Amino acid sequence: MPSRPALPRRAMIREVGLRDGLQSISAVMPTAQKLQWIQAAYEAGQREIEVGSFVPARLLPQLADTAELVAHAKTLPGLVTSVLVPNLKGAERAIESGADLMLLPISASHAHSLANLRKTPDEVVEEIVRIRALRDASGSAICIEVGMSTAFGCTLQGRVEPGEVLRLLRAVLDAGADRVGLADTVGYADPEMVRLLFEQAFLVAGDRLNCGHFHDTRGLGMANVYAALQTGVTRFDACLAGIGGCPHAPGASGNVATEDLAYMLASMGIETGIDFDKLMALRTRVAGWLEGETLHGTLWRAGLPKTMRPAPTLT
Amino acid sequence: MPSRPALPRRAMIREVGLRDGLQSISAVMPTAQKLQWIQAAYEAGQREIEVGSFVPARLLPQLADTAELVAHAKTLPGLVTSVLVPNLKGAERAIESGADLMLLPISASHAHSLANLRKTPDEVVEEIVRIRALRDASGSAICIEVGMSTAFGCTLQGRVEPGEVLRLLRAVLDAGADRVGLADTVGYADPEMVRLLFEQAFLVAGDRLNCGHFHDTRGLGMANVYAALQTGVTRFDACLAGIGGCPHAPGASGNVATEDLAYMLASMGIETGIDFDKLMALRTRVAGWLEGETLHGTLWRAGLPKTMRPAPTLT
Repeated sequence: MPSRPALPRRAMIREVGLRDGLQSISAVMPTAQKLQWIQAAYEAGQREIEVGSFVPARLLPQLADTAELVAHAKTLPGLVTSVLVPNLKGAERAIESGADLMLLPISASHAHSLANLRKTPDEVVEEIVRIRALRDASGSAICIEVGMSTAFGCTLQGRVEPGEVLRLLRAVLDAGADRVGLADTVGYADPEMVRLLFEQAFLVAGDRLNCGHFHDTRGLGMANVYAALQTGVTRFDACLAGIGGCPHAPGASGNVATEDLAYMLASMGIETGIDFDKLMALRTRVAGWLEGETLHGTLWRAGLPKTMRPAPTLT
Repeated sequence: MPSRPALPRRAMIREVGLRDGLQSISAVMPTAQKLQWIQAAYEAGQREIEVGSFVPARLLPQLADTAELVAHAKTLPGLVTSVLVPNLKGAERAIESGADLMLLPISASHAHSLANLRKTPDEVVEEIVRIRALRDASGSAICIEVGMSTAFGCTLQGRVEPGEVLRLLRAVLDAGADRVGLADTVGYADPEMVRLLFEQAFLVAGDRLNCGHFHDTRGLGMANVYAALQTGVTRFDACLAGIGGCPHAPGASGNVATEDLAYMLASMGIETGIDFDKLMALRTRVAGWLEGETLHGTLWRAGLPKTMRPAPTLT
């Protein structure tokens, strides 16, 4: 049997339920509940949380309290506080907030880019140049991560050429991104697409490529994570209870569920630092707050296997 | 990047919804509906169907019409008609029925074996010897396939040692099985467990190992299929709409959904011969017949991606 690369010993799950999840839910979660969510996720061992987005409040009233959430998150030792930033103005607010990481989305699909960001991908690259200059001038240590959305296809445009993804990756790195990730925004990826594109993207970006963002729209979220792990990815976005989607990508629904992803990784002996009992207790609370919304995931129903290794403790 | 084995160009999905699916649903589906299901699955390109089980009708009244279903299935050119057989008496009936393949379950978990078959695994091996002798004496060409259930763990016993699985695989092959498969009956497997156990099992069984049977109890069904494909498995059990489970394995629920599996394989360029439009139309009909039952799968809601290759045609 041909040898395969060993899977990583550790992986990081970035909780994006408070941003990618809540932005697709029309009801506004009260700030007090979001603060409890962040606190409980931290106590369950999560060490990266995307707490919100610095977009105009009139566009996403669900995320208008981002600065307040960052302020609380910053009090939790060792927590990487991530925020989504769509443009230079958002980057200014992210730097002011003291967040550790700003995620800048760029769409490999031109049609999605115009619908979602009202810019062409290359105009977004120019904005990244400006954001990098702003960061450097500010003296802030905030990390600039670029998330390449619709990297595996688009509900508006259809096919997205891998060559275009790789071209934009190069452009984004040249523009000053510290890190890049690839996102299957609309759930079009299969594990072989993931393997091939991440293998090629690693050749372009090296270890600056370090996030996989998968949606479970067509049931392949976990298979896609497994394929990405095999290429060397060690950091994944996920939403508690599998909430999420994209308002500008019809049909997109459901990030991979944090709890299911944490289970798969732990079952394979990959440490995430997550305590399952605490995470599942949090899921129950969040499900109560989101009553009436469609939730996803399987572990909450099935429970951990009898054979499951104890959850790894954070060191 | 280290090279990996190429995925297979073709794979076979055995539809087990009429057996593994319906046996876990208390309502009895009328024979006329089952005949329509078999016919429509065939017309959608499915070429292996487990139509039922030769167990006493008092135990599983849902499957009492198996002989009649085999008789119809045998009229469909090129269809492999599979039946489950728990013992020598069932094997006699399978041979009489004219089925192409009998699936004999054996549990790697002793506790599950006693609960499900009222025999130890080694007593089942002895029964396989008798069934092989019966088949050879009868002059029948029926294929004897042994399905190793609870190969990745058991809700009753907990851990199942891989060494015990491999020992039983050898015993089963020595007893006269033509083929063997490994089943994650209760949804305990993760992709690395699948990869490791199938790699070892191939060393024992060679190309006589040719079926993977995965449940999606904890959301890892597709990831487990992908891992098995990478080891060389080209044949998988699945249930339309993800119905199924095991009445003697509490917590077990839902085989991988035929339509989701067919989608993943086709998306990766692996031919299955399945026509999606026809398969999804059948799913709608079966869902109507099973009104009130919990169904699974994602493709029925999300639809095929815009980018999807046309379904391969059966040659």
